[in-house]
Amino acid sequence: MKTIKYTQKAEDVLNKYLNGKSYSEVFFLTDTNSFKFCFKDRNWYVSPENVIIVNPGEENKNLTTIEYIWNQFVEKNVRRSSLIVNLGGGVITDMGGFAASCYKRGVDYINIPTTLLSQVDASVGGKTGFDFCGLKNEIGLFSSSKLVIIDNRFLSTLPYEELLSGYAEMFKHSLLAEKKMLEAIMEIDLKDVAKKDFLKKIEKSVYIKNSIVESDPFEQGIRKSLNLGHTVAHSLESYALSKDTKIPHGHAVAYGIVVALQLSINKMGLDRDINNMVKDFILNLYPKLNFKFDGDTLYNIMLHDKKNGDDGVAFTLLKECGQFEINVVCSKNEILKAICDSLDCLK
Amino acid sequence: MKTIKYTQKAEDVLNKYLNGKSYSEVFFLTDTNSFKFCFKDRNWYVSPENVIIVNPGEENKNLTTIEYIWNQFVEKNVRRSSLIVNLGGGVITDMGGFAASCYKRGVDYINIPTTLLSQVDASVGGKTGFDFCGLKNEIGLFSSSKLVIIDNRFLSTLPYEELLSGYAEMFKHSLLAEKKMLEAIMEIDLKDVAKKDFLKKIEKSVYIKNSIVESDPFEQGIRKSLNLGHTVAHSLESYALSKDTKIPHGHAVAYGIVVALQLSINKMGLDRDINNMVKDFILNLYPKLNFKFDGDTLYNIMLHDKKNGDDGVAFTLLKECGQFEINVVCSKNEILKAICDSLDCLK
Repeated sequence: MKTIKYTQKAEDVLNKYLNGKSYSEVFFLTDTNSFKFCFKDRNWYVSPENVIIVNPGEENKNLTTIEYIWNQFVEKNVRRSSLIVNLGGGVITDMGGFAASCYKRGVDYINIPTTLLSQVDASVGGKTGFDFCGLKNEIGLFSSSKLVIIDNRFLSTLPYEELLSGYAEMFKHSLLAEKKMLEAIMEIDLKDVAKKDFLKKIEKSVYIKNSIVESDPFEQGIRKSLNLGHTVAHSLESYALSKDTKIPHGHAVAYGIVVALQLSINKMGLDRDINNMVKDFILNLYPKLNFKFDGDTLYNIMLHDKKNGDDGVAFTLLKECGQFEINVVCSKNEILKAICDSLDCLK
Repeated sequence: MKTIKYTQKAEDVLNKYLNGKSYSEVFFLTDTNSFKFCFKDRNWYVSPENVIIVNPGEENKNLTTIEYIWNQFVEKNVRRSSLIVNLGGGVITDMGGFAASCYKRGVDYINIPTTLLSQVDASVGGKTGFDFCGLKNEIGLFSSSKLVIIDNRFLSTLPYEELLSGYAEMFKHSLLAEKKMLEAIMEIDLKDVAKKDFLKKIEKSVYIKNSIVESDPFEQGIRKSLNLGHTVAHSLESYALSKDTKIPHGHAVAYGIVVALQLSINKMGLDRDINNMVKDFILNLYPKLNFKFDGDTLYNIMLHDKKNGDDGVAFTLLKECGQFEINVVCSKNEILKAICDSLDCLK
């Protein structure tokens, strides 16, 4: 099992880890933002020439950047006996994990995620890769980092929008776990994310994800539960992109959760009170969707996304908090009605 | 364990395999040569639009071709539930295995190797990848095909030089196994490679390789024995390339084996008779090296190849047929003397 360390001093945890190992060299992979806010002015004990810096953002999560990283590995003489440290958000941990796993048929790497989204989601679970031909994470591997170091001091420099993205995944994890945890998550004040107490909240959230991942590492069954909210989320994101605008991934997941819970009332008998509580909370916290979607187009994107040819899209839905069912096929009418009832954003 | 089927009708074995599985679609990856000699005019039962054809040869074993293959996967709508069939030599099985392993985090693939070299070596053992920055197989994965189908009818169309390349690896395997097998290998007539009897010889050779690979799949110890002859071989190849000429890989391995056996006399007490028998046989069968090498340069290439900074290069050497030792460090003097004594090709 992969080790995850929770700390408020990532540098010390890394140093201690390295003291117990015999890596020939240590290299850092980071992006310009993480370099500025999380690398500089800290004692990482790595030679400056061993730091590889790429451009930030999903728009650079592509083969061009992967090729650049491999070129840097060759130029800097990375060896099988070296260690790669990925310091950054999900884009960096996804690409760095992939690049290291393929270089010389596999170099060890560890992740130090610096955003809330990557701390509670992307950097744990063994998924690595990059976008290709406009398709998210189309090329990638299931691959495990040797260690994940989660240090919530890094969260203090994040924009509020970034925090909301990670928070949506924590929300999702709590819905998959139990009502008590859901209530605890709803009490979080995002102003406090860099405080020591918040580490425990991250740890609980990661624990839920890891329990699910470990029982199904290659996503052949139960791991699909982690897609709760994501079917609608991806279609909202893709639709927005096609109209030259953008919905942050975490916001889309939040809206997707609202729709999935609405569907869960009709299909699974989910209690209306839970649905209302979650809906009110999310729609109050996340910015309003500022344009109208065409229902037919949204549905077609979902069909394509899942590559279903038949009449229906598979969802993860909830019977109650902590009780989910995967692969629940919903019809076009059911889906569009749920979007209407919960988000009121259709043309 | 991976399944290997030996046959003289690869099409039938493939069909039988597919009948027992539920792949949504089957795709072929091949190159223009293999398409012409091994795909056309046979009943492969695959739609023509599901065949992906790339340019042949080591010079195309690069990221550009990998990107083309991934683009074709997207365009032809390859799914996680599809099967990729790699039909060709080692370049195709190496690249196809890599491309499939990374596409959507892993699509199943099987190998149908069509050269002697790929049948006895490249397509079994789980190494996949491509060349990068002038470095052989710099990017790659340990990854297993679901099935390997070895059909020696394909060998009938191969140039003699190609057969010699595969034969050098069979020779190597027999040296690692036992003297009886070495003698049997030396009795092979390469005119007979497409005959049914020859399948048994391939099977024995693959059996040796597989036994070694299975005891050390990630090359952390005993698998290094398969490098017998390859340390010198790689340096001869690289040296030739730097002088704008080329030594076929298999030939270089044959010369490398001769040098390794010469070193084995001095360092391991190998019997001179075995050494002489092998040396005479190889130097009689393989074309003479037609230019002179600079000893210092050759040695420096070896040092760089193994990325050793100290004074010596690690070899796999033989005590006797079937008894090898890995990581035997030899000095510059020892290596150059052995090359002088056995190949007489230094300036």
